[in-house]
Amino acid sequence: MILKNIQTLSINTIRTLSIDAIQKANSGHPGAAMSLSPAMYYLWQNFLIFNPLNHTWVNRDRYILSNGHASMLLYSILFLTNISNKHKSNLQHLSTSLHDIKNFRQINSKCPGHPEYKHTCGIECTTGPLAQGIATSVGIGIAQQWMKSYFNKNNMHIINFNIYVFCGDGCLMEGLSHEAASLAGHFQLYNLCWIYDCNNITIEGKTDITYSDNIKQRFKSYNWNVYTINNINNLTLIHKAYMNFIKNKNKPTLIIVNNKIGFGSPNKENTSNAHGSPLGKIETLLTKTNYNWPKYNTFTIPKEVITHFKNGFYKRGIHQQSVWNNMFKKYKYHYPKLSKHLQLINNNILPDNWHKNITSFNIKTQHMSTREASGYILNQLSQNIPWLIGGSADLSPSTKTILTYKNAQNFSKDNQSGKNLCFGIRENSMSSILNGLSLCNMKSYGSTFLTFMDYLKPGLRLSCIMKLDPIYIFTHDSISVGEDGPTHQPIEHLSHLRSIPNLITFRPADANEVIACWKIMIQLTSNPHALILSRQSLPIIKIKNLNNTNNIICGAYILCDPINNTEPDIIFISTGSEIHLCIQAYHILSQQNINIRIVNIISFELFNKQSEKYKNYILPKHITKRIIIEQASIFGWHQYYTQHSISITINNFGKSATMKQLQKFYNFNIKHIINIAKKQMHINNT
Amino acid sequence: MILKNIQTLSINTIRTLSIDAIQKANSGHPGAAMSLSPAMYYLWQNFLIFNPLNHTWVNRDRYILSNGHASMLLYSILFLTNISNKHKSNLQHLSTSLHDIKNFRQINSKCPGHPEYKHTCGIECTTGPLAQGIATSVGIGIAQQWMKSYFNKNNMHIINFNIYVFCGDGCLMEGLSHEAASLAGHFQLYNLCWIYDCNNITIEGKTDITYSDNIKQRFKSYNWNVYTINNINNLTLIHKAYMNFIKNKNKPTLIIVNNKIGFGSPNKENTSNAHGSPLGKIETLLTKTNYNWPKYNTFTIPKEVITHFKNGFYKRGIHQQSVWNNMFKKYKYHYPKLSKHLQLINNNILPDNWHKNITSFNIKTQHMSTREASGYILNQLSQNIPWLIGGSADLSPSTKTILTYKNAQNFSKDNQSGKNLCFGIRENSMSSILNGLSLCNMKSYGSTFLTFMDYLKPGLRLSCIMKLDPIYIFTHDSISVGEDGPTHQPIEHLSHLRSIPNLITFRPADANEVIACWKIMIQLTSNPHALILSRQSLPIIKIKNLNNTNNIICGAYILCDPINNTEPDIIFISTGSEIHLCIQAYHILSQQNINIRIVNIISFELFNKQSEKYKNYILPKHITKRIIIEQASIFGWHQYYTQHSISITINNFGKSATMKQLQKFYNFNIKHIINIAKKQMHINNT
Repeated sequence: MILKNIQTLSINTIRTLSIDAIQKANSGHPGAAMSLSPAMYYLWQNFLIFNPLNHTWVNRDRYILSNGHASMLLYSILFLTNISNKHKSNLQHLSTSLHDIKNFRQINSKCPGHPEYKHTCGIECTTGPLAQGIATSVGIGIAQQWMKSYFNKNNMHIINFNIYVFCGDGCLMEGLSHEAASLAGHFQLYNLCWIYDCNNITIEGKTDITYSDNIKQRFKSYNWNVYTINNINNLTLIHKAYMNFIKNKNKPTLIIVNNKIGFGSPNKENTSNAHGSPLGKIETLLTKTNYNWPKYNTFTIPKEVITHFKNGFYKRGIHQQSVWNNMFKKYKYHYPKLSKHLQLINNNILPDNWHKNITSFNIKTQHMSTREASGYILNQLSQNIPWLIGGSADLSPSTKTILTYKNAQNFSKDNQSGKNLCFGIRENSMSSILNGLSLCNMKSYGSTFLTFMDYLKPGLRLSCIMKLDPIYIFTHDSISVGEDGPTHQPIEHLSHLRSIPNLITFRPADANEVIACWKIMIQLTSNPHALILSRQSLPIIKIKNLNNTNNIICGAYILCDPINNTEPDIIFISTGSEIHLCIQAYHILSQQNINIRIVNIISFELFNKQSEKYKNYILPKHITKRIIIEQASIFGWHQYYTQHSISITINNFGKSATMKQLQKFYNFNIKHIINIAKKQMHINNT
Repeated sequence: MILKNIQTLSINTIRTLSIDAIQKANSGHPGAAMSLSPAMYYLWQNFLIFNPLNHTWVNRDRYILSNGHASMLLYSILFLTNISNKHKSNLQHLSTSLHDIKNFRQINSKCPGHPEYKHTCGIECTTGPLAQGIATSVGIGIAQQWMKSYFNKNNMHIINFNIYVFCGDGCLMEGLSHEAASLAGHFQLYNLCWIYDCNNITIEGKTDITYSDNIKQRFKSYNWNVYTINNINNLTLIHKAYMNFIKNKNKPTLIIVNNKIGFGSPNKENTSNAHGSPLGKIETLLTKTNYNWPKYNTFTIPKEVITHFKNGFYKRGIHQQSVWNNMFKKYKYHYPKLSKHLQLINNNILPDNWHKNITSFNIKTQHMSTREASGYILNQLSQNIPWLIGGSADLSPSTKTILTYKNAQNFSKDNQSGKNLCFGIRENSMSSILNGLSLCNMKSYGSTFLTFMDYLKPGLRLSCIMKLDPIYIFTHDSISVGEDGPTHQPIEHLSHLRSIPNLITFRPADANEVIACWKIMIQLTSNPHALILSRQSLPIIKIKNLNNTNNIICGAYILCDPINNTEPDIIFISTGSEIHLCIQAYHILSQQNINIRIVNIISFELFNKQSEKYKNYILPKHITKRIIIEQASIFGWHQYYTQHSISITINNFGKSATMKQLQKFYNFNIKHIINIAKKQMHINNT
């Protein structure tokens, strides 16, 4: 081996910590951790700028392990570099202790199977589902560029961090990698450095059974700077590769590392056996022998390695932030407003005037689709919150997310202060990019048609797991989109969204409810939100004294009750555009002395969190005649059922036809609702 | 224009039919239809081999419109070429009549907004969600290669059809295009010809706001043959391009057409205004003037155009099948078994001996995970059904889908008779490829971990919309996967699957139930299926006289009732691995005189289709004490609730820990179930 002395020692410490932890847990992925150690060691020790005492410093370099299964690689370095978290009661908590490493993949360890954001400090992003790390890094790259353009002034480079991502064959096979790399190349995100562990091995065997992309040519076609290392154990080559990235100022960089999985294991190196299982006792001994390592000891940590990292990574990080702090003092003096904004961003706090100029829609307002109302509010909010940015996967004229006010231009390589993000027809990467923006505390949103949430679910799930706060705007929310037909008409998607943990879904019924939803979403930072909007115009609900925000934060409210103050005979339960059908039916039935309550369950998730008392106030148990009306699958609605409930829903795919034809065909019309209500009146309440 | 005479006339007929239909519907996408007409005309008239009287001929060329929004392009040609469907009562039904075209996008028209398979004959695949058409074509390409290798003998080229796909910028931006093209290049599917309408316009405007891939270089990196046409109106160039494809015998072909959206429209050509709305009355007049077309007439169809297609496309198709029929007569004589197989495939019928050697597992069998049981049966079935092929998105050792018997090799460019499909880490394209295989009546399956169904949902939804029959095998079905943690532990996915129309989901509880599920799935050809399997070992259920297939086809059955023949106090409702917890609790509670029924709802979808009588037999309404036990979200389970139901489910994300730690943490243990049951005994049944 070409590695020498303390460098060899450090690299082999990472390797053997990984091997030992995986062996002890009897579960894990040693192969990539073993082979990538030199690149990991060299990056952290010599390039990565990260204050070990302040893992939330806004200008730290970001490191992401997109091949998250190699998590021990990351835990080892977090431990060896002594990264700690001062945030809890001012005590210094190690990010990962040796105890955590010894309890790798056991309950409550700081070292879970895959890296988890907010669980272990120093982890910038939850990874594991392949390609998510690289795609998220594009969002971080965009955030960096935007912040740089917003904050940097006169040689005061408040923001100039880099983003390093390790990834594997699996990441680059996923379609998500194409979308993310294509967009990064287009935006010339030269702050991005992806290190590709090209080891030609996946779970099923050698990659040549399924994969023969010319990666260099492929990334050149995306306008990337591509650099190849043929021997990862030659640190000079690694040094040159990272320097090549640092010097490059107009393209993202891909470093291809032609590598051997399970490096150093005499019998498993270069085979898929090194990927997803512990090496085994005997192979561990043989491998340690090969590394010239004490073979019968486990979790061996040479003191000089700790000192080495202390003198390199650790000191550099502290020093760099102190230099930055000094600069920031001056900056504060010269740019008090901007420095305030930076602090607000860093603490995920909105500016005071965030709700300026947002007024309700008058009931005399013409009919308006909820997507239009959303566009109007978004344009106001965006002017009040400079760091609220987002866009659409090529549907902004339809999802009404174009920011049209002066200075709200398209984000581009030439205009990094632009606030309209054009994701292109790349829904999948859009959600991961939103996560990247959120991880930098930018307020972010992305939009597409509701039916295409299928394309972006993988990133949306990670928004939910990480409890980030992107806002997903899904328009064209039902069969009422009309002519485009079944491929464009969501049926099961509302139930998909409502069933994902940590997501809050809203389906507002008119323009004023849209305002209320936006006010709630923009303030809540511990959850992602989905806002479900109509394509078609809807009236403004003409009921006075509705304080929408208060109602909506409870998830459900009584929109109207019988005029004669008697108890309702029947409760209509509905959401979104179908509320208006309920209101029409309510008026007709009232004249026929049938007493109706209309309940708008604008958010299942928020309503289900309310007290039993509130729930019973909205939906009293003894009022068992209920009609559920929603242009979507019934799936999930039974939680509000009683024995006399009935539903008007859609449990098959849609059709291509005009909205009117469809509403008739699928029974979303007054006549049908009134018939059902009258039939229900004949049921005995037993 | 270079176009001349009858050719010009034909092309402009397609263009103006599209314009008029869209104008009349006041909805649709004229731009691509107008600009792609020459390529469409030339392909159908001069290359595509398709018997207009028999749209299910096994060796027809396939045409797919991946940019499905340009549907009028396809309807126009189906109409002009007089394609008809003889299958209904032997009468000749036109695929699309002029009446259908005039009712484009109206209810019940054969010309819906996007092309729909099984709705309009001649449509090979439902398209609309971008990139699905191109990805599906890869499945058809694989099916063609496999069938070619299985059937063709001694110069009798029973199978040698080609697959032509039109696609747009949107298709190639989607990540799905990367996965599909990468795999097609790897497998050297030279039967594929994608025609890329490179018009540089999407909904948000010029593609240069978001897209700067060098497409030629990108596809070269995938090992494709790339050919560029700079003027689509020069038919000589189109001819050369198609000939280049026909001659190529070792790579898939991409024909890049540098094109202008809305060709011929004086004010909308080359703008996004031509994409998704009718041209408008005035622009229609101007455009027709430009085409030298009677401008005040609509739906003008020159007789000579009909004659022209009759003499070209129509005659060639009939002739080609008659030549093929003559060859097939000889083939039948020489290869009776193979020709029988071809007929079985073409009618989607299983061979007689499909269930040979499939026997139940003895109750003395060691514990076995349901994924292992599935692998065992799959290996038997695959030997009995030669055209059952499939694989995994790089997880076959874990999903147990490797076919291990002799001759079951990997499908590859060098071995097209291989039956193990290695999709690589490309879940998204896997589902679309399965659709392609199904569209050729191959029996197909694909597998991954349940949590990664998120990556393949777009194609799965199309399996359901088209009612194709791929089998989706999802293993690692709950938090019991253990150490890999929340990113790998499905929570909401069962509810996702159960809510999709037309899909049938099974979650069997032991190896014998897996057999029964496979027997059902393999015979039912009008639905896709999802088979949900455990990672962990499970016992074989030791209850005699269970006729699994009969039970399972009803979706739910009574696994056990109180031994004393009394009425149950409580019904346990469960599925999959949790059934075994129920059985253990049942035995303990029986000894304490608490009478339990266990109901296994192995498939919500099948159970919900049963008669009220059957449902009430399984879950009698008056037995209101019910405990629902499933290691997944409660979402969707309330349909089986009564007022005294309670659930043991998981409504947050998982954790990284050992299976045992997790089962304790999430309350999936006997002690907890027994406590809940005892508490329920104290509730009055009111």
